Parts: sequence; structure tokens; C-alpha cells
Amino acid sequence: MRIFLDCIPCFVRQALDSARLATDDEQIHEQVVRETLRLAANIDIGQSPPAIGQQIHRLIRGLIGNNDPYCRTKEKFNNFALKLYPELEERVRTSEAPLETAVRLAIAGNIIDLGVKTSIEECEIEGTIRGCLTADFNNQQIKDFRNAVSRAGKILYLADNAGEIVFDRLLIEQLPAQRVAVVVKGEPVINDATMKDAKTAGLTDIVEVIDNGSDAPGTILESCSEAFRDRFEDADLIIAKGQGNYETLSDLDKNIFFLLKAKCPVIAGDLGCEVGEMILQQSNSFKKVGDPIMEAE
Amino acid sequence: MRIFLDCIPCFVRQALDSARLATDDEQIHEQVVRETLRLAANIDIGQSPPAIGQQIHRLIRGLIGNNDPYCRTKEKFNNFALKLYPELEERVRTSEAPLETAVRLAIAGNIIDLGVKTSIEECEIEGTIRGCLTADFNNQQIKDFRNAVSRAGKILYLADNAGEIVFDRLLIEQLPAQRVAVVVKGEPVINDATMKDAKTAGLTDIVEVIDNGSDAPGTILESCSEAFRDRFEDADLIIAKGQGNYETLSDLDKNIFFLLKAKCPVIAGDLGCEVGEMILQQSNSFKKVGDPIMEAE
Repeated sequence: MRIFLDCIPCFVRQALDSARLATDDEQIHEQVVRETLRLAANIDIGQSPPAIGQQIHRLIRGLIGNNDPYCRTKEKFNNFALKLYPELEERVRTSEAPLETAVRLAIAGNIIDLGVKTSIEECEIEGTIRGCLTADFNNQQIKDFRNAVSRAGKILYLADNAGEIVFDRLLIEQLPAQRVAVVVKGEPVINDATMKDAKTAGLTDIVEVIDNGSDAPGTILESCSEAFRDRFEDADLIIAKGQGNYETLSDLDKNIFFLLKAKCPVIAGDLGCEVGEMILQQSNSFKKVGDPIMEAE
Repeated sequence: MRIFLDCIPCFVRQALDSARLATDDEQIHEQVVRETLRLAANIDIGQSPPAIGQQIHRLIRGLIGNNDPYCRTKEKFNNFALKLYPELEERVRTSEAPLETAVRLAIAGNIIDLGVKTSIEECEIEGTIRGCLTADFNNQQIKDFRNAVSRAGKILYLADNAGEIVFDRLLIEQLPAQRVAVVVKGEPVINDATMKDAKTAGLTDIVEVIDNGSDAPGTILESCSEAFRDRFEDADLIIAKGQGNYETLSDLDKNIFFLLKAKCPVIAGDLGCEVGEMILQQSNSFKKVGDPIMEAE
């Protein structure tokens, strides 16, 4: 999905957010905003939003001299999600449809996205969890997802944000551990999860976790390590969390299920849904042609 | 009030809104956004937001070759407000406190501000009217306002937006017609009211209406005509509607009552109120020193 012009003001806001998280120095805030404006004035709008985000956040980290301005924010959301985890885990365990409940909760966790909003209150996360547990859901999509998981030999779970990754753990625990690898970002960008967050979430104890070698807030294959690209190529099924992964992978000819909350009008427009909707959607190239994995067997 | 860095992404969004209102040509939309980013990258942040807005909207109008991109939108909101007018006028007439009811409705009308939001639904305006009629209000401010009106020989009412100006009429009808002049913008900018809107609202039939000679979305005295500056200097009381007038006049040593809805976090922060609050506030230099008009007499 290529960038929309509506994304540009959002990038400028993100830049200011990052600068303020990193320092109280208002001269640096101003410098970050001015340099982001200059960069944005000359971008190639044929790129995806995370490709632009990658350039802008590299620029910002350079200007503020801090490689991980969202570090404390990520810790805060990890800790908050870990406090909720025992109750949510019990809810999945005692559910009549554990996989569906885990999918709903994993999508709820996608509200913890500081690319879209400057800040998120804990009560908003709790409200989103309640909303996602009761919202209408397309039963066919859940069935297709269940079938895809049961048939896939190699599953890659592309995580999105810190905090959210604890919600992902609920869903990952429902997947066949031997056939799943979780993927985090290679370097910090916005509040995206890295290996540190996967460890904090306890994921490294239960499943293989790898990083993609990239600092893009999404999955730009050309920006990823060769090792990751091989794993991606080799996977039968990709579970892709969040807007950034949707923006970078939605046009790919690969069996991908996108799990996200549509949090901005641009994404909602592309998905044909309302802002705030819970999305579990198979990639276009696969959803209308039956079961490609079976056909390949 | 000087610009905050938070205003910058908002200007970029405004630029895109204006371009889309004027044309469906996506190349022009892109050009407008890029040129706005370049201009914003080099602005003097010691200026007020409307001073920057004035430069940006001049640039936009030049690029899109349309002097009044909000023309049809302004007509739409004038017509909508005129449909509501008879019912609101009766509400003021039958109120136990007509001046207060008219003040509340004039502030409600300030929701029609396309500088702050891309679009406004009619139901949002109706909801705002209901909210403003029942919201808590500082009685002392209403008393001070009533006293200021009764004592002032020459009152200037600085209108803000089209559509809103019909709501202003409700309040203007409560003021002594011989002592009031309404001020509109000299040239179109965003959806700010011009002489055409004052005529549509029926104001020119009941009171003197002048324009300020300027195309700033606020009142920047240096940008106004000499004729207006003389009237401003000569006035005993200024009633200033909306965020743009607050942003440009709040630091002035003049007896001004600001009437607005605080619609963005920057303004709310400066006013020390919550976003969405209804504001009737006397200028700082006057509100703590008794009644300056009386002292001058």
C-alpha cells in the first residue's frame, strides 16, 4: 500500500512526539520538526508509509542522539500488559472457543500503537479489550484462519508493538509451538517490539523468536536481513500484526493473515472498514482461491 | 499567542483539505502539500498561528488558482445555520436570561471551524448546541460581559466563520444596535466569514458591518486596513469570536471578551481549560483590574 498524502501530517506529529519523548530541549524539538518537514517535502510518494517512517525515524534518532526514544514507554506498556496477562490467559483457557478469544485479544493489543496516536491511556486499552471480546466477527475468517494454522508446516508470526506482544503471547500459545517462529524488529523504531520486548513478554521461553534485521515500522523485505527473507520465503503461513505490516505486505503474493485494529482513516479506507474495526483478513491473492497450501501438497 | 510546534502538522492537514476542496487533481494536492512543507520548514515560530496560516493559505490559493476554495462549504453552513435560526431565535426570545442564552449559542456556533477539523457533520453542530445550552458557565463572566456591554459606547464584534455568523446574529441582536459594528475578513481565508456571509446571515440589515481588510484567519492588526485599525483603536469593547481571534489578540492591552469553543489541545492548554470547553473570557490585562471603562470615564 503506497502512502496517502494524509499520512504526511501524521509523520510530522510522530516526529514531534519522538523528540519530546527523548528530550525536554525545545530547540531540538524545533530542529526535528523542521528537518522532518524538509525530508517530507521531497519524499517519493510511491513508497509505503513504513518506508517513509523508516527514513523519518532514522533522521529523528540521529538529531536527538537517542537510538530508542520510546524505550521507557515500551517498558511501561509491557508491564501494564503483563499485569493483565494472568486474567486474559484464564479467559482464553476457559473460553469455549480459545483460538477465537485469543485472536480477539491479540487484535485488542494492537491499540498500543504510538505511530498512530501520541499517547494511550490504560483505560483505553481496557475498553478496547472489552470491545474486542464482544464485537461482531466474521466466523468464516476465523474458520479459514484455524484451517490455515492447522495445515501450515511453517508459521511466521510478525509481531508489531511492545505491550501488544504480551497480547500476542495469548494467541501464540494457541498455535503449534514447534511450527511457529515469532519475528520482532531488528532495531528500535517508534514503539515496535524488539528482542528485548519478546523476552520481557516471556515469548523466548515458549517459542523460537528471531529478528528481521530491519528498523522499518513494518516489514519491508528489501530492508530485512537475508536470514529473515529466507525464513519468510520458506514459510507456509504469515500471521502479520498491525497497520505497518499490513501497509508493507498487503500487496504481496503470499499466504498472509493480517490481524489489526484499523486505527486511522487511511488504513480503514484501504480495508473498506470503519476506523476502530477489528480486522482478521487473509491476503487478497489467497482468500478467493481456496486453500493454496493444500493445492501445493 | 505564538505558534506551538503542535500547530505544524495541523497546517499541513489544512493545506491538504483546502486543495481537495478546490480540485480533484491529485497532482495539485501533492504540490500543495510539498510546498506547504517547504514553507513550514522555514517559518518564524515567534509568530501567531494565524500569521503562519495567512502565509500558508495565500500559497495554497496561488497554487490551486482558486481564491476561495471553501466557498461552497461556507454557503452550506450558512444555509444550515439559517434553517436553525428561527428555532434558536425563539429560544433566546423566550429565555429568562436572553443575553446568556445568546452568548451560549454564539459560542456553540464556533464549532463550525474548518481550520481545526477537516469536516463537521450537522449532527455534531446540533449536539454542540444542546451541550452549550446546558454546560456549566461562570456566572461572574456573564455579569462582567453584561456590564461591559452596557457601559461601552463603541463595540466591535469580530466575527469568525461562515455559518457561525448566523449564531452570532442571535447575540448581536441582544446588543445595542447603534453602538455595535460587526467585523468580517477582508478576503476569503479558510471558512472565515466575509461581507458576503454577513449579508447572507442578514446582519447587514440590522447593524453596521465592516471588513478588516485582511486575509489572516484571525485579527493581525498590522495586516488590517488603516480604517479598521482606527475603529479598533477607538472601540471601548471588543467581542472577539473564535480561536484565531484569541490567538492574535490575547496578549493585547485592550478590553476584549473572547468567546469560543476550545477545539484543540494547544488553545485549551493556553486557556487552562479542557478541549471542548465553552469559553467566555475577558482579556488578561483587564479582568483583574476592576472596570477599566468606568475608570477611564
